[in-house]
Amino acid sequence: MLHPVILSGGSGTRLWPLSRQNQPKQFLSLIGDHSLFQETVLRANALPDAQPPITVCADDHRFMVGEQLQAIGVRSGGILLEPVARSTAPAIAAAALHALAGDPDALLLVMPADHLIEDEAAFREAVSAARRLGDEHWLVAFGIRPDYAETGYGYILRGAALGEDSYRIERFVEKPDLATAQRYLDEGTYAWNSGMFLFRARSYLDELAQRAPAIHAAARAAFDAAHADLDFLRLDADAFAASPSDSIDYAVMEKTDRAAVVPVSCGWSDIGSWSSLWSVAQRDADGNRHEGDVISVDTRDSLVRASDRRMIATLGVEDLVIVDTADATLVARKDRVQDVKIIVDQLKAAGRTEHLFHRKVYRPWGSYDSIGVGPRFQVKKIVVKPGAALSLQKHEHRAEHWIVVSGVAEVTCDERVFELRENESTYIPRGSVHRLRNRGSEPVELIEVQSGGYLGEDDIVRLEDVYGRS
Amino acid sequence: MLHPVILSGGSGTRLWPLSRQNQPKQFLSLIGDHSLFQETVLRANALPDAQPPITVCADDHRFMVGEQLQAIGVRSGGILLEPVARSTAPAIAAAALHALAGDPDALLLVMPADHLIEDEAAFREAVSAARRLGDEHWLVAFGIRPDYAETGYGYILRGAALGEDSYRIERFVEKPDLATAQRYLDEGTYAWNSGMFLFRARSYLDELAQRAPAIHAAARAAFDAAHADLDFLRLDADAFAASPSDSIDYAVMEKTDRAAVVPVSCGWSDIGSWSSLWSVAQRDADGNRHEGDVISVDTRDSLVRASDRRMIATLGVEDLVIVDTADATLVARKDRVQDVKIIVDQLKAAGRTEHLFHRKVYRPWGSYDSIGVGPRFQVKKIVVKPGAALSLQKHEHRAEHWIVVSGVAEVTCDERVFELRENESTYIPRGSVHRLRNRGSEPVELIEVQSGGYLGEDDIVRLEDVYGRS
Repeated sequence: MLHPVILSGGSGTRLWPLSRQNQPKQFLSLIGDHSLFQETVLRANALPDAQPPITVCADDHRFMVGEQLQAIGVRSGGILLEPVARSTAPAIAAAALHALAGDPDALLLVMPADHLIEDEAAFREAVSAARRLGDEHWLVAFGIRPDYAETGYGYILRGAALGEDSYRIERFVEKPDLATAQRYLDEGTYAWNSGMFLFRARSYLDELAQRAPAIHAAARAAFDAAHADLDFLRLDADAFAASPSDSIDYAVMEKTDRAAVVPVSCGWSDIGSWSSLWSVAQRDADGNRHEGDVISVDTRDSLVRASDRRMIATLGVEDLVIVDTADATLVARKDRVQDVKIIVDQLKAAGRTEHLFHRKVYRPWGSYDSIGVGPRFQVKKIVVKPGAALSLQKHEHRAEHWIVVSGVAEVTCDERVFELRENESTYIPRGSVHRLRNRGSEPVELIEVQSGGYLGEDDIVRLEDVYGRS
Repeated sequence: MLHPVILSGGSGTRLWPLSRQNQPKQFLSLIGDHSLFQETVLRANALPDAQPPITVCADDHRFMVGEQLQAIGVRSGGILLEPVARSTAPAIAAAALHALAGDPDALLLVMPADHLIEDEAAFREAVSAARRLGDEHWLVAFGIRPDYAETGYGYILRGAALGEDSYRIERFVEKPDLATAQRYLDEGTYAWNSGMFLFRARSYLDELAQRAPAIHAAARAAFDAAHADLDFLRLDADAFAASPSDSIDYAVMEKTDRAAVVPVSCGWSDIGSWSSLWSVAQRDADGNRHEGDVISVDTRDSLVRASDRRMIATLGVEDLVIVDTADATLVARKDRVQDVKIIVDQLKAAGRTEHLFHRKVYRPWGSYDSIGVGPRFQVKKIVVKPGAALSLQKHEHRAEHWIVVSGVAEVTCDERVFELRENESTYIPRGSVHRLRNRGSEPVELIEVQSGGYLGEDDIVRLEDVYGRS
């Protein structure tokens, strides 16, 4: 059976200001309504014989993974939490062990969560070809047939044919310079290394044990000592941290004798920057891609993305990327967007937070958005999902007013427990032990006005929490 | 005595999105802390022998004029409200009649409210020269000595000398083409028509009666039938509307035999566009002008203006104007900003409001800002000035929750009148007659959460209003 393994550990900021450390690229809806993670899951799910996907992600992103799976109605095959980032080799090993526990013949389809594939039929065909090789104990890399001389990717040179459009891997080569990339393109025997792989779980672990025993041992130990936490499987922190940090490419694929490649043309992109998003997106006759409320006059070849409740007007510009969010706007020349990391580095150095999280923050119970702030007060819009509850908590420094604008909230305030309906309000004094719960079937939306001398998120004492955060 | 007349009737949108119909350029702080209107008033006020300034403005802007005068502690010499825009000739006539009522020998210094003058000493010297001519019944235009071949202004050609650096006007000439403007610059006898004038009120009215009797008669009738409204003098609407719409230049200055010009170099600009603001503003070593929270990387010769609580990051761009506001952001090539009117026209055609007003709306009692909105609710931050009161009012369709975050509010809700202090809240049911008042000496800040099926600003029945709006 085919077990998709969704590698969702990335925390890139190359799509800042839309991507943030706590909401990286894979969880954003960049093209269409679904996030790249959701698209990846749905793509895997549509394959014949596909089992529920196994996701490997960072602790910070666990609730987002759970919610995004739920939103598309896909049953999870397990959410494995990496205690620290150790690149792809140990992450895939943990997923392999997890799959083997239920299916001794498990075939793994490894897919980074943040890639775009436009031609799903071509992809499915490639997977079929790869499965035939996987069954024969080959470790298969999906190679993307290059359609231009890209210098930003690693390449795979194919060797002897193993079947129709499948080959031994002759060797992996590093990112080439432009002349070399052009030669690779002309020769027709090179493909981009997509980061997608297919193999038997058993084959991968055997090769890993032989080629990178320290990684294998660490992943094994981390998996054996893992503990379940709600819907998540927490890999053991110390054991996992002991693993060398290495990619599947270096640790296994470049060393094994059983490496194969299936070349494919499937409209693949890793959307590594705003300009690559622009180049894969549908554009209007002037070459513009607009998202949201945009008025553009004499504007060409630009990507313009407005955010909620705000419009962007452009006039006489070209080759720009303009991305607006609640707290930050980027205006960049399209051919310079790879340097957005310079801005992120400046934010880090200045101790700012615009690279870490959005103004609207997702929590396992819903979300909050700081819509207004001033000396000694803050206004938040809070949404509590049906069935969800915030922790039982208290604050040392702030009092809170809650006004329900939709839904029915159950409020605990010290000894009292009562319902608060649309257009009703209550007051939570400083130091009161309180909880907000939604027992209804519709989301609860409420406005919270905080007041006090200190209003930081860290002024919270959690006494009980259904999400294991207390 | 010298009576400054501040013409504040402009409603330009050339600085959109910062300027809006209800908050035009003259009321914005573009350079420094004061608005252009305030700068103009302070400049006039610093002249020897200056009387309190007479302001002519549109009805919509009356409270803003009053407040901005109060904020700089300048006593008003009268705020005349134009019922409709009829250009400068009748507006100045009304101001002349107003000045004459208290001072039969009144000298008027006419100044548009939205110009910048960097060299105040040079300006004062020019006013002195102009006063000598004004006393001799000349109608004096201030001519700006050109320092480049500008094609966007009208020019004044000087004739015979009347004294040191003062001349008869030979003629007014329209905006020239570039070659002609260059010739004007080279010849040294042309000056830009600044729109600033000095003359006796009597001289102006006499000339107007002779050269444009219909304007004179309409202004006279509108002034005679004017009525006082709080601090404002409301010119009679029907009478004023009967005036031809004409500028002082066409109606009087080009026709009178008593036209004089005083040329001056005083760092004057009419800030007619974002690019002219950039060119007069202080810039950093890369040629950039930044306002607010801006991070700029490899950016040159650009004007970047961030708004409250939001940052703008620029990367690899040049010659751009980027202006952010709460509800709209403009990104334009600097040499195209005169076409911002195309965007404003599109907003008008689409029935939108981003050209009319900002999200934060000023009222005579303070301000409100719609900080959050959703189906059936809206959150506003409301500030009530010390001593101010909202109207006694009720709403058909919405209830309101008020939470005071600073200051002490006096609340009327049907029969009850009570104080609401920091961190206290109250509820105003739908249909209740209510009022909010600040009897303290500090501003009251409160968060209002409205709920109901209809939340438009027009759901208000004003039963009493200290600002004459009921």
